[in-house]
Amino acid sequence: MMSKKIAIILAGSGVKDGSEIHESVLTLLHVIKNGATPLFFAPNSPQATVTNHLTGDSLGETRNILVESARIARGDIRDLKELKSSTADALIFPGGFGAALNLCNFAQKGADCSVHPEVERVVQEFHSAQKPIGFICIAPAIGAKVLGSQNVKLTIGTDAGTASALQKMGGVHENRPVDEICVDEKNRVVSTAAYMLARNIAEAESGISKLVEKIIQMA
Amino acid sequence: MMSKKIAIILAGSGVKDGSEIHESVLTLLHVIKNGATPLFFAPNSPQATVTNHLTGDSLGETRNILVESARIARGDIRDLKELKSSTADALIFPGGFGAALNLCNFAQKGADCSVHPEVERVVQEFHSAQKPIGFICIAPAIGAKVLGSQNVKLTIGTDAGTASALQKMGGVHENRPVDEICVDEKNRVVSTAAYMLARNIAEAESGISKLVEKIIQMA
Repeated sequence: MMSKKIAIILAGSGVKDGSEIHESVLTLLHVIKNGATPLFFAPNSPQATVTNHLTGDSLGETRNILVESARIARGDIRDLKELKSSTADALIFPGGFGAALNLCNFAQKGADCSVHPEVERVVQEFHSAQKPIGFICIAPAIGAKVLGSQNVKLTIGTDAGTASALQKMGGVHENRPVDEICVDEKNRVVSTAAYMLARNIAEAESGISKLVEKIIQMA
Repeated sequence: MMSKKIAIILAGSGVKDGSEIHESVLTLLHVIKNGATPLFFAPNSPQATVTNHLTGDSLGETRNILVESARIARGDIRDLKELKSSTADALIFPGGFGAALNLCNFAQKGADCSVHPEVERVVQEFHSAQKPIGFICIAPAIGAKVLGSQNVKLTIGTDAGTASALQKMGGVHENRPVDEICVDEKNRVVSTAAYMLARNIAEAESGISKLVEKIIQMA
């Protein structure tokens, strides 16, 4: 049997302005442990902001999403423009503020957000091709915006304000603890709260490992 | 029983100019899974270089080791100056070129390298206090330089050139496959090759999980 190819979409490198590093690495770890092949992609666009992760202040710099994401991927990453639904068997979006700052602008605009055009395109293409899509942590905001018209079922854990914003975009939110996943069989979408709830990396892993396993099983 | 405190020393965030991200995250994961408490530290100094991880070229920027390391630590990290041997029960150094560029200059100078003064101080203090020290990937170069006079036994895997440089500094090199550790019981030093040999993150984990377990057992 051919190894299933799982496209992991990054948004930079660091929880405060990019992809959450632990969630991204745990996703990769479990893709490999389940015998699948990871393929990293990221938009070749400037980050919305660059944050000093020690102080939380803006660094006032410009960094590129693809170039910084390459840190997590050890250089083995491609421009999101190159990803077609024929390239991989499934998509996974780790979380971190970058998912809500760079892949869409949910962090600033909430339910009125718009989604990066290449991100919107790949989500629509994979959804149309009935290939499974995983959203981790705050990344379900992307799913709610792009697939809200399909009444996509998602979890971001238990945060009422965020859940309400997802519902405004057409999503159906279900509360889930950190070690569980939310599965929308019709839309083939899987989500888990990770650091929306996790108090440490092992708690984040408890849900992410299940999400990755389910995505690979469905792919 | 009190949870053992394990100080993890970072060198930036990214394999080419900082700490190898997978090795750092796997170290954290296994510290937590073994019931110990992680404490992150990094030197508050400029990085030797800033590398575009997509192309391998220099970005010609200046970044701070502590500030960039904070990305891996989700902000929960302190200046290495604050680390005393009374602060933690053990030290672990993940690898990545940052260990050989920022924590010492082994990447440029080989056996003639010098070690960052705060790194040298903590290695000496923990060694004197007989607290265990773990070195991952290329980080054993630091161990060989600081503890060469103690004939410290180390592995960087099987690379003959690197092994020879460690021996020139007084280290005793032992070849080890990626899923094994090298234990120097006298000096209380443990090392593993990780991405010096690993072809993927699961292979890196196979040795790192053993190193972390052994360090916590010895602490």
